[in-house]
Amino acid sequence: MSITAVRGTFLDFVDDPWRHPGREEESARFFADGLLVLDDGIIVAFGDHSDVAADYPDAEVTELRDRIIVPGFIDGHIHVPQTRVLGAYGEQLLPWLQKWVFPEELRYADRDYAREGTRRFFDYLLASGTTTCQAFSSSSPVATEEFFEEAARRKMRVISGLTGIDRNAPEEFLNTPEEFYADSTALIERYHGVGRNLYAITPRFAFGASDELLEACKRLKDEHPELWVHTHISENPSEIRGVLALHDDCDDYLGVYEKFGLVGPRFTGGHAVWLNDDEMRRLSEAGASVTFCPVSNLFLGSGLFRLGKATDPAQRLRMTFGTDMGGGNRFSMLNVLEDAYKVGMLNNTLLDGSVDPRQQDLAEAERNKLSVYRAFWSITLGGAEGLYLDDRIGNFEVGKEADFVALDWKAGPPALAWHQSLIADGGAPATLDDAANLLFGIMMVGDERSVDETWVLGERAYTKG
Amino acid sequence: MSITAVRGTFLDFVDDPWRHPGREEESARFFADGLLVLDDGIIVAFGDHSDVAADYPDAEVTELRDRIIVPGFIDGHIHVPQTRVLGAYGEQLLPWLQKWVFPEELRYADRDYAREGTRRFFDYLLASGTTTCQAFSSSSPVATEEFFEEAARRKMRVISGLTGIDRNAPEEFLNTPEEFYADSTALIERYHGVGRNLYAITPRFAFGASDELLEACKRLKDEHPELWVHTHISENPSEIRGVLALHDDCDDYLGVYEKFGLVGPRFTGGHAVWLNDDEMRRLSEAGASVTFCPVSNLFLGSGLFRLGKATDPAQRLRMTFGTDMGGGNRFSMLNVLEDAYKVGMLNNTLLDGSVDPRQQDLAEAERNKLSVYRAFWSITLGGAEGLYLDDRIGNFEVGKEADFVALDWKAGPPALAWHQSLIADGGAPATLDDAANLLFGIMMVGDERSVDETWVLGERAYTKG
Repeated sequence: MSITAVRGTFLDFVDDPWRHPGREEESARFFADGLLVLDDGIIVAFGDHSDVAADYPDAEVTELRDRIIVPGFIDGHIHVPQTRVLGAYGEQLLPWLQKWVFPEELRYADRDYAREGTRRFFDYLLASGTTTCQAFSSSSPVATEEFFEEAARRKMRVISGLTGIDRNAPEEFLNTPEEFYADSTALIERYHGVGRNLYAITPRFAFGASDELLEACKRLKDEHPELWVHTHISENPSEIRGVLALHDDCDDYLGVYEKFGLVGPRFTGGHAVWLNDDEMRRLSEAGASVTFCPVSNLFLGSGLFRLGKATDPAQRLRMTFGTDMGGGNRFSMLNVLEDAYKVGMLNNTLLDGSVDPRQQDLAEAERNKLSVYRAFWSITLGGAEGLYLDDRIGNFEVGKEADFVALDWKAGPPALAWHQSLIADGGAPATLDDAANLLFGIMMVGDERSVDETWVLGERAYTKG
Repeated sequence: MSITAVRGTFLDFVDDPWRHPGREEESARFFADGLLVLDDGIIVAFGDHSDVAADYPDAEVTELRDRIIVPGFIDGHIHVPQTRVLGAYGEQLLPWLQKWVFPEELRYADRDYAREGTRRFFDYLLASGTTTCQAFSSSSPVATEEFFEEAARRKMRVISGLTGIDRNAPEEFLNTPEEFYADSTALIERYHGVGRNLYAITPRFAFGASDELLEACKRLKDEHPELWVHTHISENPSEIRGVLALHDDCDDYLGVYEKFGLVGPRFTGGHAVWLNDDEMRRLSEAGASVTFCPVSNLFLGSGLFRLGKATDPAQRLRMTFGTDMGGGNRFSMLNVLEDAYKVGMLNNTLLDGSVDPRQQDLAEAERNKLSVYRAFWSITLGGAEGLYLDDRIGNFEVGKEADFVALDWKAGPPALAWHQSLIADGGAPATLDDAANLLFGIMMVGDERSVDETWVLGERAYTKG
């Protein structure tokens, strides 16, 4: 048993800020001088230094001064084998996949290339402050193995699985339902629940899946009901048309996944931009999740996710946020917050009635405004809840795994520091409100340069300096 | 007479890429090993090193290796006194102005504060690779003086003027038409055409202008027809309603500025998001310009500028691009290109007919795709044409002023370098196509960290190292 501790300024969340309209500070917790006590990377105590320190006189304490320490960021949707081709020009989803993505992902059938790409992937994640991801690998088991091996080396809490695709992709990229079932079974056996690795049954998307492939997914889910299920849904209008043509016995996109019993807790459909109201309600009632990927939705021109609808308390939809790197042209969840904010503001204008009076919904308009509380909850505790991992990560509750990020609110583009000096006369934040305002500056004016250190399971995994 | 030269890899433009659909490379010029020869900051020769060097054997040559040298970036719309409050949370245009902007801009009536803010403004501009801007100061002549004085110290080609506003702002922020006319006249006399300074008659926007204030602008324009005119137009739906209520004898927003004879060459209306078709046609026919400010349009949720409509060859509308810092939460024109690309892709999806078949316009959809050629032209030669400055800046033509940026295509977020190594096996670009692909990587995956050096009038004005 080795007790260590971290002393510094901490901010985390205890509830969903959308549940506290007008009083969002109630959802957060702040210690200007806090102490986080760890035993082999698990939190055993957390609170004000003056309350906690005396109980742990022998703890080895690391002080992180002039930083705001928050839980590690959670990326609910990211493509490991697109690491090198992020930001590739000029197409909506379907032609972009064919032109840029499948050729690069094919290279991950080569173990050396997969290993290099995966190593870089994790380096870039940690440099961005992301400590947990739900990731797509490629359709080759080699890529999935390299992912879990590297994640284990880094001791990170991750979800992934072999990608299944047997339609609408290059011949060499496809796997058959039988291969997919057999390879997935072997990978589940080898990796699920081993260390911090968790497995997701991963049909890439309904547009790339025959009924037989989805039947294989159903079989895996029936045999292993505790597993995650990770896929895409309703990202782009042409994609949806393609899905309904391929699965013409279903009324809508969600119906395809429902038909094979995949929708429920630990199911995540990425994007969900063009869901109809009924699909959103059914997802909510099933306890399933969606991942909001604004950077990608803008880069591929997919559209504006209905953030205010997903957060409607009458049918709250679990969410994670995600980069969707490489459809997303950025690795950092801070850039995701920036673009999420922008999507929300565009929605806000369309819903306030100033353009089309019939579209006015002031409550939904307000829910689209991504305050700093809503934002940082969404990539920490909210993201954990979206992934059904909130028993293990997401905030600094006793018993959880200690993944966290130390943010330097002055580090970033040239304009950042003077902007931040407006808050708290340029010193360290003494109050929750000051800290929140500094975080908003990071989110809107800064970028991953503010990530000074990233810790995984109680140990430094990345230092910027 | 002192002849100096810069040797390196150069890329600039000779024409508008939108005029060369499918063959955009015709609009650009590239020298893998080029020489730019300067006499006191004016270009006297430019071309391949092997063609040019022999004519200038005594020139003092600076070699900039492993860089792509492009003309300095042009920002057509930016607010000096908002430097410290960029990225302020949570409102559409009108409440945002009242809550965040006017209070900070008021501080620029104090010369010390204005001097500090203006100095920082220019530091951040140059660090972002911007060498020319058309800027708003505040409604205090002190701010305008400090701007022109600092610009002169930096020898930068700039346009600015005293902001006129006498409605819908705090009492202490307003100037009367008489004050505005008298102060503007004095500033014009003192600064216009002196060094590289140029003056713009600047009514902030029609929502903040009485008929008398606009009459004063008309008088200034009649007395000084060669001046620029700089204002806002049709940024936000509620703003437009407010303008038409205030100027109820006009049918549309542009009509207000037309009524006072302000619309013509060297008139720029910023944003122009919600112009109707007829307004766009009238602006085009008048030879006037608009500034596309996507970062701001997204941050304030203003809406999606119709990039494909503005570039319709049947009624081409002159454009500059701009940050609109502080409604824009970023200083860098590279971030502007990223968000411009995203606005274009959102428009592309709405215009391809996949959502509403009645909206299909494939030609307009295609014009919304911001290729790297279209992008970098827009912030160099295109921006210069938009500001009627293309006789002096915008590319490396002989006789023009030598403002340029040396870009390091590998410097930026962690993921950038490996992504860029896909192009030209990681070496320096040997062809225009390679250079263009590297620039696209900077635009979509990078940021102002790629700005390694910024030169103004033939001298280094900023170095990152």
